[in-house]
Amino acid sequence: MSLVRPSGRAAGQLRPVSLQRGFTRHAEGSVLVSFGDTRVLCTASVENKVPAFLRGKGEGWVTAEYGMLPRATHTRSDREAARGKQGGRTLEIQRLIGRSLRACVDRAALGERTITLDCDVLQADGGTRTAAITGAYVALVDAVAPLLARGELKRNPVFGAVAAVSVGIYQGVPVLDLDYAEDSACDTDMNVVMNDGGGFIELQGTAEGHAFRRDELDALLALAEQGCAALFAAQREALAQA
Amino acid sequence: MSLVRPSGRAAGQLRPVSLQRGFTRHAEGSVLVSFGDTRVLCTASVENKVPAFLRGKGEGWVTAEYGMLPRATHTRSDREAARGKQGGRTLEIQRLIGRSLRACVDRAALGERTITLDCDVLQADGGTRTAAITGAYVALVDAVAPLLARGELKRNPVFGAVAAVSVGIYQGVPVLDLDYAEDSACDTDMNVVMNDGGGFIELQGTAEGHAFRRDELDALLALAEQGCAALFAAQREALAQA
Amino acid sequence: MSLVRPSGRAAGQLRPVSLQRGFTRHAEGSVLVSFGDTRVLCTASVENKVPAFLRGKGEGWVTAEYGMLPRATHTRSDREAARGKQGGRTLEIQRLIGRSLRACVDRAALGERTITLDCDVLQADGGTRTAAITGAYVALVDAVAPLLARGELKRNPVFGAVAAVSVGIYQGVPVLDLDYAEDSACDTDMNVVMNDGGGFIELQGTAEGHAFRRDELDALLALAEQGCAALFAAQREALAQA
Amino acid sequence: MSLVRPSGRAAGQLRPVSLQRGFTRHAEGSVLVSFGDTRVLCTASVENKVPAFLRGKGEGWVTAEYGMLPRATHTRSDREAARGKQGGRTLEIQRLIGRSLRACVDRAALGERTITLDCDVLQADGGTRTAAITGAYVALVDAVAPLLARGELKRNPVFGAVAAVSVGIYQGVPVLDLDYAEDSACDTDMNVVMNDGGGFIELQGTAEGHAFRRDELDALLALAEQGCAALFAAQREALAQA
Amino acid sequence: MSLVRPSGRAAGQLRPVSLQRGFTRHAEGSVLVSFGDTRVLCTASVENKVPAFLRGKGEGWVTAEYGMLPRATHTRSDREAARGKQGGRTLEIQRLIGRSLRACVDRAALGERTITLDCDVLQADGGTRTAAITGAYVALVDAVAPLLARGELKRNPVFGAVAAVSVGIYQGVPVLDLDYAEDSACDTDMNVVMNDGGGFIELQGTAEGHAFRRDELDALLALAEQGCAALFAAQREALAQA
Amino acid sequence: MSLVRPSGRAAGQLRPVSLQRGFTRHAEGSVLVSFGDTRVLCTASVENKVPAFLRGKGEGWVTAEYGMLPRATHTRSDREAARGKQGGRTLEIQRLIGRSLRACVDRAALGERTITLDCDVLQADGGTRTAAITGAYVALVDAVAPLLARGELKRNPVFGAVAAVSVGIYQGVPVLDLDYAEDSACDTDMNVVMNDGGGFIELQGTAEGHAFRRDELDALLALAEQGCAALFAAQREALAQA
Repeated sequence: MSLVRPSGRAAGQLRPVSLQRGFTRHAEGSVLVSFGDTRVLCTASVENKVPAFLRGKGEGWVTAEYGMLPRATHTRSDREAARGKQGGRTLEIQRLIGRSLRACVDRAALGERTITLDCDVLQADGGTRTAAITGAYVALVDAVAPLLARGELKRNPVFGAVAAVSVGIYQGVPVLDLDYAEDSACDTDMNVVMNDGGGFIELQGTAEGHAFRRDELDALLALAEQGCAALFAAQREALAQA
Repeated sequence: MSLVRPSGRAAGQLRPVSLQRGFTRHAEGSVLVSFGDTRVLCTASVENKVPAFLRGKGEGWVTAEYGMLPRATHTRSDREAARGKQGGRTLEIQRLIGRSLRACVDRAALGERTITLDCDVLQADGGTRTAAITGAYVALVDAVAPLLARGELKRNPVFGAVAAVSVGIYQGVPVLDLDYAEDSACDTDMNVVMNDGGGFIELQGTAEGHAFRRDELDALLALAEQGCAALFAAQREALAQA
Repeated sequence: MSLVRPSGRAAGQLRPVSLQRGFTRHAEGSVLVSFGDTRVLCTASVENKVPAFLRGKGEGWVTAEYGMLPRATHTRSDREAARGKQGGRTLEIQRLIGRSLRACVDRAALGERTITLDCDVLQADGGTRTAAITGAYVALVDAVAPLLARGELKRNPVFGAVAAVSVGIYQGVPVLDLDYAEDSACDTDMNVVMNDGGGFIELQGTAEGHAFRRDELDALLALAEQGCAALFAAQREALAQA
Repeated sequence: MSLVRPSGRAAGQLRPVSLQRGFTRHAEGSVLVSFGDTRVLCTASVENKVPAFLRGKGEGWVTAEYGMLPRATHTRSDREAARGKQGGRTLEIQRLIGRSLRACVDRAALGERTITLDCDVLQADGGTRTAAITGAYVALVDAVAPLLARGELKRNPVFGAVAAVSVGIYQGVPVLDLDYAEDSACDTDMNVVMNDGGGFIELQGTAEGHAFRRDELDALLALAEQGCAALFAAQREALAQA
Repeated sequence: MSLVRPSGRAAGQLRPVSLQRGFTRHAEGSVLVSFGDTRVLCTASVENKVPAFLRGKGEGWVTAEYGMLPRATHTRSDREAARGKQGGRTLEIQRLIGRSLRACVDRAALGERTITLDCDVLQADGGTRTAAITGAYVALVDAVAPLLARGELKRNPVFGAVAAVSVGIYQGVPVLDLDYAEDSACDTDMNVVMNDGGGFIELQGTAEGHAFRRDELDALLALAEQGCAALFAAQREALAQA
Repeated sequence: MSLVRPSGRAAGQLRPVSLQRGFTRHAEGSVLVSFGDTRVLCTASVENKVPAFLRGKGEGWVTAEYGMLPRATHTRSDREAARGKQGGRTLEIQRLIGRSLRACVDRAALGERTITLDCDVLQADGGTRTAAITGAYVALVDAVAPLLARGELKRNPVFGAVAAVSVGIYQGVPVLDLDYAEDSACDTDMNVVMNDGGGFIELQGTAEGHAFRRDELDALLALAEQGCAALFAAQREALAQA
């Protein structure tokens, strides 16, 4: 088959991934994640309090917020703070990020703390939510480390790793890690969040146009597994640095 | 295996499904859908206008709104109109319903019309979004029929059928169509939207607790296919009545 | 006089009234009230807390919220939750329902509990607020009964009964219980809330067009007294059923 | 009977009424109305446009907005602009003022103009809505006069006059024009809006505590007729000045 | 130079200033301040509580809110309460007023009390924020006086005095206390808040058009010092009255 | 005098300034400005439309929006989009940025275009608004350049340059370019916006604590002039690069 992706990538090829730790100073964890031209700043903030529904239960909470700078995109979009509300897409994405990261946290081990993962898109080129999840994991690990080092946490509340990637059918071919040019031209795509034990944490497949056949779905899942494996390696490599 | 579901159902058994057409008078389509104790009023409203981004393009639009009456649930929840905004869960569900129904509509054939599917939950017992999609399809067909009969539409903009069902892992066993008792006890579930050609339109699987293994995912997809088949039959039967 | 009302009713004739108890499962009281084609779901929810201004005073509170499903009406109206606020008409009606029901409740006997009456219009054909008040009374009685039966309340906080009906001048003739066709054609109407001791709890008469003469007002009040008497009978009959 | 009202007034006695025209410079009509210590600034603003639902129909519109300065009352209340919404009481009152004034305006004669009546309470001592209606009428007449003088209006769109007063049962006795001390001690009161032809435009009677008997209602209506007659005289006198 | 200001004033001449104390009854301090045709009602309300960030610290708080009646201006502006938010200009002004008045209050001496200065513009003709600051100071002193007289405060928390005036370059000439005609024709102006010790509390100079040269700035500051001196005299005179 | 600033800088010394052009891809101008540890991403977006009040006048508009990422600061602050409104500080700053940049733009030369300057703080250490203005100028020039190059603009709408710096009294000594440690310890500071002709565009001096004496003000203005001169040089240097 002679698919030519707009970026020239092979069907199963990720964009260049980078995870730059310590991008800003104040946050307990701060990672600039890039999936190609998609760049998301992920910070992890630790606070010694929990939401009302958890008070007094000895458990912690992990939550996420997502935003996109107005000119992260080709044309300027309205600033959500100015419009006075977060849109449905934003809420959906930040709920997804929060659920995904909670899937690798033992909230009892965390104790009555909240870790907030702020994922702000500086530049968008498709796949902002999967980049955000992948980067937020690294920021989370960085935020927890000093608590462990200082003995404030008895055991590590983070178990395993979490990463995410998109897959989709582009011009009839299953491809990995869609960029904007592919994303806007293909109406069948899926975001897959996995843990490093090979388990699926979230699947969000959408087909406004062409419905997935079962065999296509299988091919997409295989690509996603392969993509996440590469992302877990990138996370490990980033975290191995001082 | 000797799984006993709280309702006594077999693992692959749907709750009793009913689709009561013409439940209210004013809407072009009005269906009260029940999946067991879950009851959702789905109305389809036709308006001869389209959102700004479609004006003058000769295409129509299909959109959805979702609401839950404050006391549809075991304990009263706040009225979203009184709080001044729709929550993230509401927005996520109504976006899902809208995308799902657009997947069976030829918007060029619809012309510059908008069909709004209002899905209001009168009583909740798990699976409100899947019931809503399944019922909204019937309301949509009812709303389009008189336009065809009067010749206002040249050809039927609705092609195929759309239905949805939830599946999940309950006490280690894949089960179909979770009710509230199961939903709140299991942390791995998936909503599956299909068309009657066997294609997947939406997959939304979430595992805050136990991550899906690939074989579990396969079992869940098989259950969903079987459940949707039964729902397509129920839709056809309902629509066959005068 | 040869008045012909659009519905063919006599000037002093109510529409068929029905009060269907136990319409939904979860609420402590749940009544589907119909005044002809107007159908309102009234639920009563009991919570063991009171608003801040009553805390520690040993008194309870009764309040109401009102909503209309977007397609309860001939043409679809915006969803208030989506617009981000309740309109003036909604607030006015729910304040009226709350005041009306508080007029038959001994709040000291209720203790530090709040009963919220949610009145949601499923189908509108004029008179939604009067139907709501009439139905909410029955839901209120149903919500209180088990508290009395279980001995959680020492004495019944509900005294007497409350019902409501509209009256107006249609084509020069005073008529009872206006439906939508009459309501939109007549610009003089009044909502009357009474107790079963013959007292007036609320009068809200509005004449944007023709101002009421005093003799017209007297005729309208007489019709309202007669209509409320019939509604009290319907409430008693509904409550007499198991 | 030896009723002593807190103010020493007789049961049927209004508070001193004043209607100060031209209180501010910019508005087409600007009246500071006082009912005793209740002082409301009523301005009428004329704009050559109408709301969307009236465009192109050749008719005008009259609407009202109501506000209360935060410290118009004994204790400071929150500023509605700061809270981000107008409360239910505010919306209810401004809808009442608007309907009341529309009852004396021939909207076809007004042409495609909107007159907005802003009623802002500088100091509150009960009866702010009735004072507002009574004062807004004078501001309305003042705003229309130059349009007539300049020939921009062919005929006077204002016909008759509109005034309003409150009545209530205080310590068992029907009284006219309740001040704050009476209003807060009596739970049965009614706002009555009349025209100078003796017709009733609005009746809003509320009895959270003691329900009105029919004979009490008759006594209250008689007081209101007498009070409005005095207010019409005050309006005529104010308007007779240069 | 033969500058003719629209009002005929000399370049360094204030408009007539009046400070009418006790303008309304309920507030602890209530001053109607006029700078020519600009009229602002300033009330000071004392409450025995402080914002959350100050609780338990033994300090008080002074804050301000600002509003403009919709028809205070030549053309009607939207009511902020109806639009659902305060505009940027309003927030900016009320923050300025709050900071300015806090500059003359010893918050430890005030104890755990909040004084809210509500500044509502009844009529606008330029300089509403400077009039508001000048009037609010007098209201503040009036609100504190009875606390001192009753011994609730041990020492006077108000030290010195605060007043404000605008200056600007009109037709090339530095002028004092701009009215609307000047303000809208000149694009260089500055609001200056001073204390009576000759210190500058706030400077807010804006030049959308012609940038200030340093010598112009010096001239403007000199005019402002002279204007504030006259305003301090007016405050003292007003406060000297019974 | 032996002042030691927390950073060890001399009283009149700026922090290291950098202006990194082309920081993101999509915006017409995109500059990451750093004043020491304060880092603000300034993008300039060009749109071929103007706000309603300018339509058809042949003039353009320049406006600004400001935001701070939740964890740009030492402790996490709420996301304004999630709270549903921009705070007073944000509105005040973005209005300041907008006015400042309009001071160097010939809006007639710009034609019916809007340039929006989005200034988003990635990391805050004092002086975010002055950094934003200084960086936004460079982004503005970059956004205009291709319009000139392509001949879409006949003449350059940007004249001169605009930069801003803060000054304040720290431990009794006037200092330039306050960082967070100084800003939070000193209660007298001023933001100064200048053009490269030596004119003052905005002065915003605030003294909640110690009021400025006139001689202190003169010293601060001299420091600001010197600081802005250095910033103009930095802008020129940055713009001189390819």
